[in-house]
Amino acid sequence: MATFGDIGLAAGINILSALVFLIAFAILRLQPFNDRVYFPKWYLKGLRESPTHSGAFVKKIVNLDWRSYIRFLNWVPDALKMPEPELIDHAGLDSAVYLRIYLLGLKIFVPMTLLAWAILVPVNWTNNTLEKSKVTNKLQYSDIDKLSISNVPFGSNRFWAHIVMAYAFTFWACYILRKEYATVTAMRLHFIASERRRPDQFTVLVKNVPLDPDESVSESVEHFFLVNHPDHYLTHQVVFNANKLAQLVKEKQKKQNWLDYYQIKYSRNQSKRLMTKTGFLGLCGEKVDAIDHHTAEIERLSKEIAEETKRVKNDPKSIMPAAFVSFKTRWAAAVCAQTQQSRNPTVWLTEWAPEPRDVYWDNLAIPYVSLSIRRLIVSVAFFFLTFFFMIPITIVQSLANIEDIEKTAPFLKPIIEVPFIKSFIQGFLPGIALKIFLIVLPTILMLMSKFEGFLSISSLERRSAMRYYIFNFVNVFLVSVIAGTALQQLKSFIHKSASTIPTTIGVAIPMKATFFITYIMVDGWAGVAGEILRLKPLIIFHLKNFFLVKTEKDREEAMDPGSIGFDTGEPQIQLYFLLGLVYAVVTPVLLPFILIFFALAYVVFRHQIINVYNQEYESAAAFWPDVHGRIISAMVFSQLILMGLMSTKGAARSTPFLITLPILTIYFHKFCKGRYEPAFIRYPLQEAMMKDTLERAREPNLNLKGYLHDAYIHPVFKYNEYDEDDLTHEKLEQETELVPTKRQSRRNTPVPSKISGGSSPSLPDVQENLQP
Amino acid sequence: MATFGDIGLAAGINILSALVFLIAFAILRLQPFNDRVYFPKWYLKGLRESPTHSGAFVKKIVNLDWRSYIRFLNWVPDALKMPEPELIDHAGLDSAVYLRIYLLGLKIFVPMTLLAWAILVPVNWTNNTLEKSKVTNKLQYSDIDKLSISNVPFGSNRFWAHIVMAYAFTFWACYILRKEYATVTAMRLHFIASERRRPDQFTVLVKNVPLDPDESVSESVEHFFLVNHPDHYLTHQVVFNANKLAQLVKEKQKKQNWLDYYQIKYSRNQSKRLMTKTGFLGLCGEKVDAIDHHTAEIERLSKEIAEETKRVKNDPKSIMPAAFVSFKTRWAAAVCAQTQQSRNPTVWLTEWAPEPRDVYWDNLAIPYVSLSIRRLIVSVAFFFLTFFFMIPITIVQSLANIEDIEKTAPFLKPIIEVPFIKSFIQGFLPGIALKIFLIVLPTILMLMSKFEGFLSISSLERRSAMRYYIFNFVNVFLVSVIAGTALQQLKSFIHKSASTIPTTIGVAIPMKATFFITYIMVDGWAGVAGEILRLKPLIIFHLKNFFLVKTEKDREEAMDPGSIGFDTGEPQIQLYFLLGLVYAVVTPVLLPFILIFFALAYVVFRHQIINVYNQEYESAAAFWPDVHGRIISAMVFSQLILMGLMSTKGAARSTPFLITLPILTIYFHKFCKGRYEPAFIRYPLQEAMMKDTLERAREPNLNLKGYLHDAYIHPVFKYNEYDEDDLTHEKLEQETELVPTKRQSRRNTPVPSKISGGSSPSLPDVQENLQP
Repeated sequence: MATFGDIGLAAGINILSALVFLIAFAILRLQPFNDRVYFPKWYLKGLRESPTHSGAFVKKIVNLDWRSYIRFLNWVPDALKMPEPELIDHAGLDSAVYLRIYLLGLKIFVPMTLLAWAILVPVNWTNNTLEKSKVTNKLQYSDIDKLSISNVPFGSNRFWAHIVMAYAFTFWACYILRKEYATVTAMRLHFIASERRRPDQFTVLVKNVPLDPDESVSESVEHFFLVNHPDHYLTHQVVFNANKLAQLVKEKQKKQNWLDYYQIKYSRNQSKRLMTKTGFLGLCGEKVDAIDHHTAEIERLSKEIAEETKRVKNDPKSIMPAAFVSFKTRWAAAVCAQTQQSRNPTVWLTEWAPEPRDVYWDNLAIPYVSLSIRRLIVSVAFFFLTFFFMIPITIVQSLANIEDIEKTAPFLKPIIEVPFIKSFIQGFLPGIALKIFLIVLPTILMLMSKFEGFLSISSLERRSAMRYYIFNFVNVFLVSVIAGTALQQLKSFIHKSASTIPTTIGVAIPMKATFFITYIMVDGWAGVAGEILRLKPLIIFHLKNFFLVKTEKDREEAMDPGSIGFDTGEPQIQLYFLLGLVYAVVTPVLLPFILIFFALAYVVFRHQIINVYNQEYESAAAFWPDVHGRIISAMVFSQLILMGLMSTKGAARSTPFLITLPILTIYFHKFCKGRYEPAFIRYPLQEAMMKDTLERAREPNLNLKGYLHDAYIHPVFKYNEYDEDDLTHEKLEQETELVPTKRQSRRNTPVPSKISGGSSPSLPDVQENLQP
Repeated sequence: MATFGDIGLAAGINILSALVFLIAFAILRLQPFNDRVYFPKWYLKGLRESPTHSGAFVKKIVNLDWRSYIRFLNWVPDALKMPEPELIDHAGLDSAVYLRIYLLGLKIFVPMTLLAWAILVPVNWTNNTLEKSKVTNKLQYSDIDKLSISNVPFGSNRFWAHIVMAYAFTFWACYILRKEYATVTAMRLHFIASERRRPDQFTVLVKNVPLDPDESVSESVEHFFLVNHPDHYLTHQVVFNANKLAQLVKEKQKKQNWLDYYQIKYSRNQSKRLMTKTGFLGLCGEKVDAIDHHTAEIERLSKEIAEETKRVKNDPKSIMPAAFVSFKTRWAAAVCAQTQQSRNPTVWLTEWAPEPRDVYWDNLAIPYVSLSIRRLIVSVAFFFLTFFFMIPITIVQSLANIEDIEKTAPFLKPIIEVPFIKSFIQGFLPGIALKIFLIVLPTILMLMSKFEGFLSISSLERRSAMRYYIFNFVNVFLVSVIAGTALQQLKSFIHKSASTIPTTIGVAIPMKATFFITYIMVDGWAGVAGEILRLKPLIIFHLKNFFLVKTEKDREEAMDPGSIGFDTGEPQIQLYFLLGLVYAVVTPVLLPFILIFFALAYVVFRHQIINVYNQEYESAAAFWPDVHGRIISAMVFSQLILMGLMSTKGAARSTPFLITLPILTIYFHKFCKGRYEPAFIRYPLQEAMMKDTLERAREPNLNLKGYLHDAYIHPVFKYNEYDEDDLTHEKLEQETELVPTKRQSRRNTPVPSKISGGSSPSLPDVQENLQP
């Protein structure tokens, strides 16, 4: 049982490590040679360039300006300074709304914490149940337990305070959730309405085009839409199966990297001829000149790519039964996306086309029947993953048993018997199996979502996030609360009655408060502080920079800005919502720790979003219904748990009062779903019509067909074209894709990089470069 | 414990009573004066007229043709003769598909019965578990139990036969269900495609029109749709709040009935002046001349109605914020019905307009927020109704205690002490309270659905059917299987584990087989046979005919053809599906009884649909997804129960095999939902476009606006207009509404009435009348 002292010690250690991370970050980020690690976003946007053209060589690597070190914590206000509309403009609505999840946490939990400390803590503290039971039962208890509900005597009338607070917390959370949902909906609608013209506004993705022996897919699509949307159909693009081509391109890139590596090596030491082996991983096979070999390989691949490109474009078999169909107006696209086209509901399926960069190309050709089978397989697989994942890990752990290894492979005995290696195997190997599993878990979940057949990266991430949350809930939360693996729990829950499950969990909840406080400090505080340091990208960037980088373009590619990572980040936040809601009534001591997490994470991720993360797609906050739904489910769970706990505390009379809470909460959820969710799924015709009318008035002679001509071409074809073009062209294209250069407000607001990267050295004024 | 003898006796009694009903029907239907009771459908369609114009007076009342009595069972082949396409044409798709539910029962259960009797009955019979336990435990058992799973010894390998059969039954049922879903979907689409022009094809119901201070609802609607559907909007009709008007009209009809009654009485005995009292129910108040009084009253009401009509049509407050918006093409209506119109998803809600006669007018003005609250209230109310309905009934029953009555009202003592009355109170009163509740239950459920805010009669009936099924499942099935009221069960289930609930029910299932066999015979056999006799409509018709009927029109109104009654009929069939699926593996003896029910009900309801029931609306089989879903849920339930039963029989190893079954079944349901359900919810654009194109080619100069002009006027306005028109006009209108007189096929097929009413006397050849 942890006392205040223990908790204080743990807090001290974690605060210290968090501080170390933060200070290391504050110093590292000021060094110019780390600039591309800590400010990649600005490079990607073309608002910052490598500090090569000014100053001495030393200055390029180390920052010698002592004044900047004084202001080393300036990044915090910098990160907070950028106003939200500008943030949306800078990093997209997804990022801005993602930050609002942390803010939502603060909005919900700050008043809850104050109220809980003002009312519940005194109510709990002024009892002596635990002291008494210490005397009678020799029960161990800690000071923290004295502040929790455990300290209230059996059947006490004081429990009414907890019930009233449960109501107050629920109403407050619902109020804030509703307000937030309304705000996000308004932001989304405004964002969509004020957006520039984008190809996906006019385009619908048509799947499961039925095959016709007399017509090609392209003809079939054209005829169908000319007949059924005669006044609106504009053009369409078929989808090629370019998976093989993409593989070739990837291979070529890899060879190019090696060539670069050898060329740099050669340029540094021209006396030695560099050799490589042609076999597996360059370890065996014939010895050849490295540079010549790779140049030849690249040439061969280029030829193959050209051939494959030709084949894909001409072979009717490489055309998939799907197409991007574009319409003359947004209204018509909205109509086509929302209606059923054909008598048979499994062909001619239409849905909104995702943004071009959001499309997940590999899944476009999955037929309908296969989709539902895939869904079944994935749900069964996920069930087994969640409840049975401990079995293979236990097997691996038992294999890591030293005696067994020595028996099966006696020749390893001398190595293993070295004391250091022995203790390493005994101490770390079992843990490593679990750790490796947890590291690859998001990848496994993402593979599941991909297999399930979602068509856009954003929906893939949303589905993975849901699964990750469920996995966390079962294997982190429940397993921590009740001892035993998830499988054992599942077994015991099946054999328990519906009314005893909340009781079982509810009773265990107050006892685990100290554990979760430590968890929050390790995972939440130190983990978030570690995120800002970006240790892994820092090392990889410098390795790449040293071995591979020849040109500015290479350096750009060596940057790994990363992205928000909705599929892992959001479930983590949700775990804190869950902890906060569950412990708000039971052990209010836990709340301040959660508050610190939310505040710290908000600042850190705001900084990262402004300076680091690259936006991979823009879904216009399509994930909000999921976020909202998960918080609601955490609330309902916490209410059921409280009910279970109360029933063991001799407050059974409270059950009717407490059962009303989840019913009201679920009703609230339904209300929100009906009121706000359609804004995230459908596109109102009124909106579409308004934008169409405006556009027609502004640009009556717009060549929309030309604009949409190659919007939905597989990126691999674009890559090929780029490859032949020069560098500048590519860069310009990227800029026009990402930066709304003609935006009026930009001219009046200060340069964004000055606001958020103010304390960093060598900031070229790129404003002029942007104006064409 | 019932033996074969007991069951045989019960079967004999029920078969006898069913035969009595059928013979009574066979004789009564041949009497011309019952013609309007047993063949009202033909009168409504105008294909049959009162047998007044030919023959002697006696012949009009009693059928003296002895030959027709010989063929008294001819109605059975007659009912089966009419081919399905003609049935659809005659009684609508709803009726035809409703009959297919009975057929579906036969299709599923005939092979199941054969297989179960061929395999499971021998497997069960050739054990002696029950005989042994009789010796050791003195357990009572019956011959029927020897045929059931109870007779297989604990842990026997013979249970594999049951598991294999469970799989076989599931696959067979799924196969048939899928085929049936496909057929019904095709029928629906074909029906919709081959339908004549109907107003609802062009019309969309717009709800929650936002109120505008500067515009009337009508203007607001017109502007909105002119802006957002500029090329397609045609016209619209606002919805009036005519509830008060409808009440006045109803009152007038009632007074008219009384006037008719007095006039007929007077005409029979002109010597006596008829008096009535003006007060409550004619029991108190001033005495006045009855005919004069009612004539004056009717005049007053006519005036009031005229005034109210005027007020409703001119007062802007009586216009509800809803409208029927019609478009130029079916395509545009399909688009508008399936898309979201406005940014705010709670205003400008669009959905397909129901058929004009299917509209439930009273609910058209319920605002969005109120709707979701109503839904919450109704679901809570339904929960209480299902689980707590026994409480008030028990209270009423305890009030009916003789001693209590005597105590509270001593003056009643002499009456109550009469032996006959005493035994009546003691024997019947407690049961009557329950019986009355069960009789009014469908009405209560319908009121709930109405309160919930559904907009069409068909959807009201569908929702009521769902609730009625759940109520039956809990209070008829579960309560019969496990003793105790639903409330007691709910309590015990909450405190039991998820895995013991199927066990509890599963163990009780085989023991209740004889009870359910008796239930099937009483409710299924005799009940269905009673349905064809139509005792209540028969009596009421003759009473009305004697007291009220003056003209042919009155006689027409005195007919009460009734309708299928989907809200009570379908849940009853579903109970038999449930019984059949649950007992198929456990006690196959029950299956033949269910087969007889399905066969008998099919014949009886086919006859009733052809000759009696009036079609109140046409939803084009929109109820099929519900029917399918309920059979699936019965299957899943039966599989879980079997699993519970097996686990107590020492066949726990079978659990993994049995748990796969519900998963596969649910997956099958999802597949069907995705594959077929859209045909019942959405309207494909391809279909709409095809019909539009055809129509444009056939009738290029169609005045659609004129056609749609008053399609969606509140029926009360129509009634007023009819009232002023003459009878013939009304009749003609009705005909054109119901009978597609110009249908080509009719000329080639024989007269329908000859097929189905062949054995009835005096059939006027109306074919000539139909040709204009």
